[in-house]
Amino acid sequence: MFGKKDHLTVERGRLHISGADTVALAQEFGTPLYVTSEERLRQNFRAYDAFSSADKYFAVKANGNLALLRILAQEGAGADVFSAGELYLASLAGIPRDKILFNGNSKRESELVMAAASGVRVSVDSPEELETLARAAQSLDRTVEVLFRVNPDINVQTHPKIATGLRTSKFGIPHSQVVDVYRQAMASSHILPVGLHCHIGSQILDVSSFVEAAGRMMDLAAAVTSADGSVEMIDLGGGLGIQYDPQAQPAPSPADLAAGVLPVIRQRSAQIGISPRLVLEPGRSIVADSTILLTRVNTVKDAHVTFVGLDAGFNVLARPMLYDSYHHIVACDRADQPAAGSYTVVGPICESGDVLARDRLLPPVQRGDVLAFLDAGAYGFSMSSQYNGQGRPAEVLVAKDGGAELIRRAEGPSDLMAGQMIPSRLLY
Amino acid sequence: MFGKKDHLTVERGRLHISGADTVALAQEFGTPLYVTSEERLRQNFRAYDAFSSADKYFAVKANGNLALLRILAQEGAGADVFSAGELYLASLAGIPRDKILFNGNSKRESELVMAAASGVRVSVDSPEELETLARAAQSLDRTVEVLFRVNPDINVQTHPKIATGLRTSKFGIPHSQVVDVYRQAMASSHILPVGLHCHIGSQILDVSSFVEAAGRMMDLAAAVTSADGSVEMIDLGGGLGIQYDPQAQPAPSPADLAAGVLPVIRQRSAQIGISPRLVLEPGRSIVADSTILLTRVNTVKDAHVTFVGLDAGFNVLARPMLYDSYHHIVACDRADQPAAGSYTVVGPICESGDVLARDRLLPPVQRGDVLAFLDAGAYGFSMSSQYNGQGRPAEVLVAKDGGAELIRRAEGPSDLMAGQMIPSRLLY
Repeated sequence: MFGKKDHLTVERGRLHISGADTVALAQEFGTPLYVTSEERLRQNFRAYDAFSSADKYFAVKANGNLALLRILAQEGAGADVFSAGELYLASLAGIPRDKILFNGNSKRESELVMAAASGVRVSVDSPEELETLARAAQSLDRTVEVLFRVNPDINVQTHPKIATGLRTSKFGIPHSQVVDVYRQAMASSHILPVGLHCHIGSQILDVSSFVEAAGRMMDLAAAVTSADGSVEMIDLGGGLGIQYDPQAQPAPSPADLAAGVLPVIRQRSAQIGISPRLVLEPGRSIVADSTILLTRVNTVKDAHVTFVGLDAGFNVLARPMLYDSYHHIVACDRADQPAAGSYTVVGPICESGDVLARDRLLPPVQRGDVLAFLDAGAYGFSMSSQYNGQGRPAEVLVAKDGGAELIRRAEGPSDLMAGQMIPSRLLY
Repeated sequence: MFGKKDHLTVERGRLHISGADTVALAQEFGTPLYVTSEERLRQNFRAYDAFSSADKYFAVKANGNLALLRILAQEGAGADVFSAGELYLASLAGIPRDKILFNGNSKRESELVMAAASGVRVSVDSPEELETLARAAQSLDRTVEVLFRVNPDINVQTHPKIATGLRTSKFGIPHSQVVDVYRQAMASSHILPVGLHCHIGSQILDVSSFVEAAGRMMDLAAAVTSADGSVEMIDLGGGLGIQYDPQAQPAPSPADLAAGVLPVIRQRSAQIGISPRLVLEPGRSIVADSTILLTRVNTVKDAHVTFVGLDAGFNVLARPMLYDSYHHIVACDRADQPAAGSYTVVGPICESGDVLARDRLLPPVQRGDVLAFLDAGAYGFSMSSQYNGQGRPAEVLVAKDGGAELIRRAEGPSDLMAGQMIPSRLLY
């Protein structure tokens, strides 16, 4: 019923996830509610076995839930972290430090000190950052292994906000500077340059873009090797897309990606005479379809169109507002019924842009119904906010046997007080 | 130096806010840091005295800081709240319940029960919501005063995401249904319909749009009065814009707005034979320019343009990414120097869209510098998130004497654990 999503089934008309009844979950835990299938998460990670010996560093920015990170740690994942906060989460979840890469185009000095002290690798984004990191490493008397984030100048087909490998993007070191900065690192007593890193964007459905990026990276690896640099790691980043819309073209699998990329890496490595370890940074392709967002219908209003008002808006799921993204919607207790009407599905936020789906065909929708947004595990909770005084939602993990456990509690109004102080002179 | 912003001055080359040195504030409290001038906030509220007897309900969505709400409560503000959370904040700050209006296009049943129990007025967005509210009021044996949110079908010049009075927007009851739903409310034993409400959008710089909306509201007031409805309140909402760009046209003042709107309300009220109380819901025009955002430069990178990498991105200030908004930037310790270069100012977030200003002319910028984003008090902190594992920033209040007090502490990595649980079966 839902393509290859084996964890989603319909039983007696109701949507189930890993055997758990979504309507019952909404009732028990309240809405909005993110619900993750543990088994699906594990399966998605294992699909990257197609890369055999490559390291898979999960992109924590896609989902920073500790239980999910812990599951991925059990599966052998490393972590791509983008801040001190993400490093903290990955460490708490038990991901080993030699499989953590500290990324970012604008790291604080305190973050570079923390990275040096913790023993993780750092992806260096600029010559100036290299100097700051070298000073931090020297003051701690540590040697830090670094990769260099390269701007590969690759134009990909995705939303402009998440195309990160364009020449004009803020990320990485221009081609022409890479060999110089590598040499500079080689001359630094507390820095050990070990490889090259790129990331061409997110939600990419075209393997050829990755193949092109791999070629550029190997060109640079050749240049660095010629300059006596040692290239032990090639990190191709993440960005493999998924199929959000059942009517759209299927997304390439990790196996498809491997089939495109691995021959380039192998052949070029042999030519150059190096044998670098391959690193990948998958996020969305591992976590997105493991998770659904359950919401309840507060109101149905007939205006120039029929509006369905939910208890979740762009405060909970920002992607439709930010990127005009499609998320498939299932009416949880009418999941086997045909569409009966066209609805514009909106959240409770005070802006006209708070629309989750326009003119969507659904079975009849009524106040109190539970709707599921599929493929909500990546850039869902992690982009959520308390805008409009809305508490952030709870998260639930469903085990293989269908048992559901709370892995993050819902926030209420009093959570808005956290950290606030009113000077006493204003009270009396 | 900064137009009419008396609270911002330059002393010995450094930007000061209400006499407090911004570079010293950044040093003492860390960055990113929101800093509010108490005096400016009070002045901005008092500018609405031009409306004399009108009630001013501050739009809590613009800024939910408790100290700021407390100051506005002292000034006599009411509150426009959009959720149970915002009602909680307004109540904590001491805003009286008879000056609170509970707004929203998609309220939960629990929120309607809370509104009925608390004694605030409710702006009803649909006939179905009226029924739900009537049931809640009846079960509590309370009478709830309601306004009806009307869709005024007004096309305004602002960003489409925040134009809320278009026919196609999700907000309000279509013209043609208003009299019927008013009558329905009059027949309900626990509902007392007292008036009409609209809100045409945000960041509107054209008084004529408000005048047009006032005219539509008075048309409807006439129709409701003819149907024996009692119109005791006319709520014209908020939306008055401010001048973000010093090079742009000045924004109309509250006095300009009053000069445009009050004659329409008075003349039409006299014609109809009613004397409704006027309500306004200002947010941005009161809080935006009271507050600046201080950030520190992590890195400067020469690529195809010169990038300035800050410790604040769209996680802290979302408006540039969401609405392509302009915020004026001041180099805090070189505030009297002319521009020396063009910079693209970016945050630390993992997306190419995390750009706060493109090709901005600034004095020479170096690592460690503090930059101030002006006019950051509205939809700044309130839209912030923990995306990319970034803690949300601290907030500081500067009193009239230049004394600075922390009014919200900064979050750190451990705040990302809040509310999370790892099932023990995943740990051993």
